[in-house]
This record gives sequence, structure tokens and C-alpha cells, in this order.
Amino acid sequence: MKRRNTETITINNVKMGENHPVVIQSMTNTPTADTEATIKQIKELEDAGSELVRLTVNDYEAMEAIPKIAETLRRDGYTTPLIGDFHYNGHILLTKYPESARYLDKYRINPGNVGKKDKHDSNFSQMIEIALKNDKPVRIGVNGGSLDQELLTELMTQNSKLTHPATAQEVFAEAMIQSALRSADFAMKMGMPKNKLVLSVKMSDVQHMVDVYQKLASRCDYALHLGLTEAGSSMKGVAASSAALAILLQQGIGDTIRISLTPEPGKSRAEEVNACKLLLQSMGLRYFMPMVTSCPGCGRTNSDKFVYLAQDVTQYIEENMPIWKKQYPGVETLTIAVMGCVVNGPGESKQADIGISLPGSSEAPSIPVYQDGDLLTVLKGDQIKEQFIEILNTYIKKRFSIAQSHH
Amino acid sequence: MKRRNTETITINNVKMGENHPVVIQSMTNTPTADTEATIKQIKELEDAGSELVRLTVNDYEAMEAIPKIAETLRRDGYTTPLIGDFHYNGHILLTKYPESARYLDKYRINPGNVGKKDKHDSNFSQMIEIALKNDKPVRIGVNGGSLDQELLTELMTQNSKLTHPATAQEVFAEAMIQSALRSADFAMKMGMPKNKLVLSVKMSDVQHMVDVYQKLASRCDYALHLGLTEAGSSMKGVAASSAALAILLQQGIGDTIRISLTPEPGKSRAEEVNACKLLLQSMGLRYFMPMVTSCPGCGRTNSDKFVYLAQDVTQYIEENMPIWKKQYPGVETLTIAVMGCVVNGPGESKQADIGISLPGSSEAPSIPVYQDGDLLTVLKGDQIKEQFIEILNTYIKKRFSIAQSHH
Repeated sequence: MKRRNTETITINNVKMGENHPVVIQSMTNTPTADTEATIKQIKELEDAGSELVRLTVNDYEAMEAIPKIAETLRRDGYTTPLIGDFHYNGHILLTKYPESARYLDKYRINPGNVGKKDKHDSNFSQMIEIALKNDKPVRIGVNGGSLDQELLTELMTQNSKLTHPATAQEVFAEAMIQSALRSADFAMKMGMPKNKLVLSVKMSDVQHMVDVYQKLASRCDYALHLGLTEAGSSMKGVAASSAALAILLQQGIGDTIRISLTPEPGKSRAEEVNACKLLLQSMGLRYFMPMVTSCPGCGRTNSDKFVYLAQDVTQYIEENMPIWKKQYPGVETLTIAVMGCVVNGPGESKQADIGISLPGSSEAPSIPVYQDGDLLTVLKGDQIKEQFIEILNTYIKKRFSIAQSHH
Repeated sequence: MKRRNTETITINNVKMGENHPVVIQSMTNTPTADTEATIKQIKELEDAGSELVRLTVNDYEAMEAIPKIAETLRRDGYTTPLIGDFHYNGHILLTKYPESARYLDKYRINPGNVGKKDKHDSNFSQMIEIALKNDKPVRIGVNGGSLDQELLTELMTQNSKLTHPATAQEVFAEAMIQSALRSADFAMKMGMPKNKLVLSVKMSDVQHMVDVYQKLASRCDYALHLGLTEAGSSMKGVAASSAALAILLQQGIGDTIRISLTPEPGKSRAEEVNACKLLLQSMGLRYFMPMVTSCPGCGRTNSDKFVYLAQDVTQYIEENMPIWKKQYPGVETLTIAVMGCVVNGPGESKQADIGISLPGSSEAPSIPVYQDGDLLTVLKGDQIKEQFIEILNTYIKKRFSIAQSHH
């Protein structure tokens, strides 16, 4: 698919835009002032594959903590750019703590809560000035939950005077877009170049969010940050966010994504990073790790057997990826099929790089393994998992090792 | 969005097509001959909201079990139509067990494995004849994992003779489409009306699957069954299936969907039904239960508090829906927001029917509750959950009770 035209935005060591892969980002939920917890979580997010990490900077203590967080991370070899998320008092914090302002790699400003009436523009320009001075990119992050009420009222009033007024929802969408575009225009007039600006117009309803991003995309060429805000927990959040982001990404819209999941108590914050990786890889937009294709099972399959094998193989891949990534460049594009019966088993196995087709309940107990589309061997016995993993290792070594590619 | 033109397909008590909601279906993974386990699972799937249930019918024992399964379900008040999934020996089973053939509400035939060479057409027509005699609808279910190899070879040979041959992938997609369309055409020539035919062309790769469905949709007006086959387990399956189905549904393509999840050991098969409901509701295509919008939390929020409240409210809804569905028609359209701080809390809460905005870490401990966009009350203390649930109950009773609507 053709990506929408944008400039390249550079956020420290990360580039985004038309000519770069869609960037994954996430946000901490530890109190930023708790530097230990925050550093730990940022490491967890970066380890999981988050390429940008955002932190709330909501008070003096949070802003004061930034240099320590950044320095500790850099010392420990973590490189993900840090984005400060400002609301209400960003102009005060950025002014009062110039050192922290320099340590942050990007500022997120929500034009819906930078201040009311005549304070709005002066607070906003105060932040843009600091961004310009420090050469930092800025996200103009509009949100349906905190839309600029003065702007909304202005547009509602204009609309009410029309002969054919738009619906309230259409006016709301227009206010979201204008809040983003007017703020970006304001920043550009102050001297901020287009390649330092990212826009977002997040909402919590899939159709409203898709609609407002499509309209915004057609009216500007700023880089866009996509997200369904307040997506909800686990399966609901993954389903809704995947739907919304897939529709837009398929149209070439979106340069960086976040999937906002309400965490389940006890589960890692990094779940939201995994969700992004799974979405981008399943759409063929990026590759992060070998993908295991496995069937859903039915009354034909010995359900337990192939389910456990698929799980074991997936787990083996996850455990080995940190090493494989370095030793076997390109291994992330590998495809593996673990199938449960003869109906689609051999077919899917042949289409994968390596595939195994376990016998269904009334089939003979022989287990064909396919490699690059051809039958490689037929396994039998109770060491299937070990044998299949050996085949996998041999294949990876042969195809992806750096030494091999020099021959 | 505008749905694609189709006729209305009637499967016993369920209707699908352009003028009907997108129908949710699922498939059992118990051995069909194990009637007890199969009946139990079909009840579980129907209870979860599966509107059609498919079973493998792979051998004599499975086919013999159909009358008992169907009769027990009907006796116990379960009404979901039962679809027999046939491969290789469907013509034999349907001929040999006419009673079972009558008990099934629809037959799924995979033209990729009805038999080779001259057997292909005779086996296929034998099944269509039985469908015609019993007045049953049929799904022509083509699958990338079991594509008709003779047809593929035929098209590959034709393609190789072209001056500008298509890619292998394009030919594969064309073979998928032709397998479906030729089979449907064959059935129609035998007298099967268009309103008895559903087509599917499932594949395991999102972009290939989207591409082949878009092409098929543009070349016919048969009702379409959508699915990403072998989607994988849990989060991967939900992310990939939601992406693929959302892209197509957003274009008006798709009359019934299945999300094929490789089950996690121990988890309910009904997960695949929940995934369908979450996708359709998040896209605004159907409503199944009140939706709780909750924020992902950040360093501003007292993460535990709102996360637990969001969970408790969701659980309360799930527990009460069986009763509410009967007492309060329309309650499934209710929207609830459970938010964690002042940034988007009040805004999202006002946009929901009922919303509660818990205080962030440095905010005053008062908790505004909004109803229909207006501030209803401000809660304090440690009975927040109980008080919020009381407000919820009062609202639901007032707005949705049948008695009320007669006043």
C-alpha cells in the first residue's frame, strides 16, 4: 500500500514519516516522580519493542525526575526517546526546569487544555518557543475527551446560523481537526518547521476516530500519530484498536501508533507494545519475529496436541529471539505453520517456510514436515516437539546466519 | 457504511445478507461423535452469542451423532442452526445418512477436496442434489490451505503462456475466486437459487485475504462469509482477524463472520464468539452489551483504583445481561465511561450515557458522575463502587424498562 505523503520527523535516534516504517510507541503508567519504578517500566517497554516512550509530566516532582530517568536509561544502554506529556501546566514546567526540557526528546501538547481565553495562545506559544530553542519536535495531541471547548462553541455557533447546519457530530469532528491544524499553523508561524510537528486527533469511538483521521489526512501533510483513546481492556482494546488502526493504515494513513490498553491488574504494561507488533506484522507492514500460523482446531483435530505444539514453538521463538536477532538477520520474516489435520494442514505447511501437519483424530500417526514448500521428512513417535525444533534450528542457521551469507 | 448488495439467505431461524445484521458464527472443536461434549460446547457457544454453529462431520460416527445432537439442543431450548462441515467424504455421508442430512441446517462444501479429476464434479453435484432435495443452503467454502490443485495448475499453465504473466500470488488469488465462482455457477445450473448460496475464500495472510475478498466481492453478489483462517492464538488471532475483517466490513463486504482462534489450553471455545461481538460492537455494526470505555492510565492516574472499578463494572454488566436483555430492551446500546484523571475524564464521561471520573494522583478526592452529558452528583468516600452501581441500576431501570416505555 502507498503511504500518505509526509516529511521525515526525527526524534533523537528515531525517524518517522512516509519513508520510514510505522513507529511503535507506548506510555508509562508509573508516577513519573517515582524514578525507580518509571525507569524499570521504560526498560520493560523498550525491551518489548517500544520505539518511543511517553511519560506524564504533571507536576514539579515529575519534571524534576526527568534528568535522572534519562541519564540512568542512557547509562544502562537504553536509547528509546522520551516524550513528555504536558497538560495545563506545561508552560510553567518547561520554563521552570530548562534542564529537564533539554533531556526530553519531544513534547506532547494538548491544545484542549493549555489554558482558557487569552491564556490559551500565550501558554501555547511559551511551550513552542522552548521547543524551538531546544530544537525538539512537538506533537499537537488533540483528544475527543479534552477538546478545546471555546473552539467547539465557536464552531457550533457558526453552524447554527447555516441554512443547512451540520450534525453535532460533524461539528465535533471539525473542531478536532481545526484544533490540530490551527495549533500547527500557529507553531509554524512562530518558526517551527513542518518536520518537527506530529498531529493526532484521538477519540474513543472507532467510527468517529476513523472519520476524523481520514478528514485530517486529506487536509494536511503533517505526520500523524494514530490511536484509539480509552480503548478498554485486553481483548476489547485489542479488537477495537486493531479495527480502527487497520482501516487507516490500509489507506496509508499513520506514521506512529499507540494501542491504549487498560491494563489488567498484574499484567505487564508491555502488552500494549505486543499488540502493536502483532497488528503491524499481521498486516505485513513490519516484521518483528517469526510468525506461527496455527489452525483453530475442530472436531477433526486432536486439539491438545497441536495446540501445545503451537504454544511450545511460539515460546521457543520468543525465548530465542534476543539471540537470533543478532546472529540471524532477517529471521523475523520466517513463517512457521503448526496445523492440526489433513484438511488445510499440508497446504498451509507448504505455504510457510517450515510447516508441520499433525494428524487429525482418524488419520494415520505420521507427521509430515514441509520446508520451502516441499516435503522434508515424516516424523513419528513421541519426540515430535524436539525433532521439529531441531529442524527449525537447522533451517534458521542455514538460511539466516551471517557467515553463510558470505559464502 | 453501505453494505454490499446481496440476497437474503435463510438458515433455519437466522437470516443474513445486505438487509440483515452481520451474523456471528463459530465452530466446535469436540469430536462430533462425542455427543455429550459436543452438545455442551454448542450450548456454550450459543449462550455466548454464536448465531450459527458449525461442526465437523468427518466420518460415520460423526454423521450418526447429528440427530441426537440436534434433538437434545432443541429439547433444551437451543435454537442456533447447525452447519455440517464436509471434506473428502461429504457425498458419501450425506447419501448414507439422509436423516442426519435433514437435521443439519446448512452444508459447508470445500471445492478443494470433494475429489479429484472426474470424481470432482460428480461428488460435488451429489451433495448439491441432496441440498436441493432438503431445501438446505450451502456454503462454498474455498480455503487457501486446501485450494483445488487441478484448477490452480490449469490457471498457472494459462498464465505462463501470457506475454505479461501475472505473479504466482495473483494467479493463486484468481484460482481461489474461480474455485468459488465456478462451484456456485455449477450449483445454480443444477437449480440452486442464489439465496441458498454463501461463498468464502479464506486465507491465513491478512493482505492476501483482504485482496481476494475485495476481488470476489466486486465480481459477484453472493452473500459472503468472512474469516481469516488459521489466525493463531489469543492476542495474535484477535489482532490479525480484527484487522482483516475491519478493513472488509468497513467497505460493506461480509454477511457473516467467524474469528478462528487457536484456543489456549483451558480457555473456553466461546472466546472466538466474544472476539466477534467486540469487533462488531466497537465498529458500531451491532450492539450486544453496554460498553465500558476506560482509559489506559498513565503516571497521573491512581492506576489500581480505576482499573478495578472498570473491571468490576464490566463484570457486573456481564453477570446481569442475561436478565437485563429480557427486562430492558435496548440496554445493549448503553455506554459507560470509567476514567482515571481530569485530562480526558470529564470529557469522555459526558460523551457516555453514564460516566465517572476518578481523581488522578494529585487531584482532590471528589469523584464526579455524569449522566446524559450533565453532572449528576459528586461521590466521596470508600463506597464508590456500590454507589456507582446503584446509579447505573437506576438509570437502566428508568431508561430501558418496558413498563416505563408504555407511560
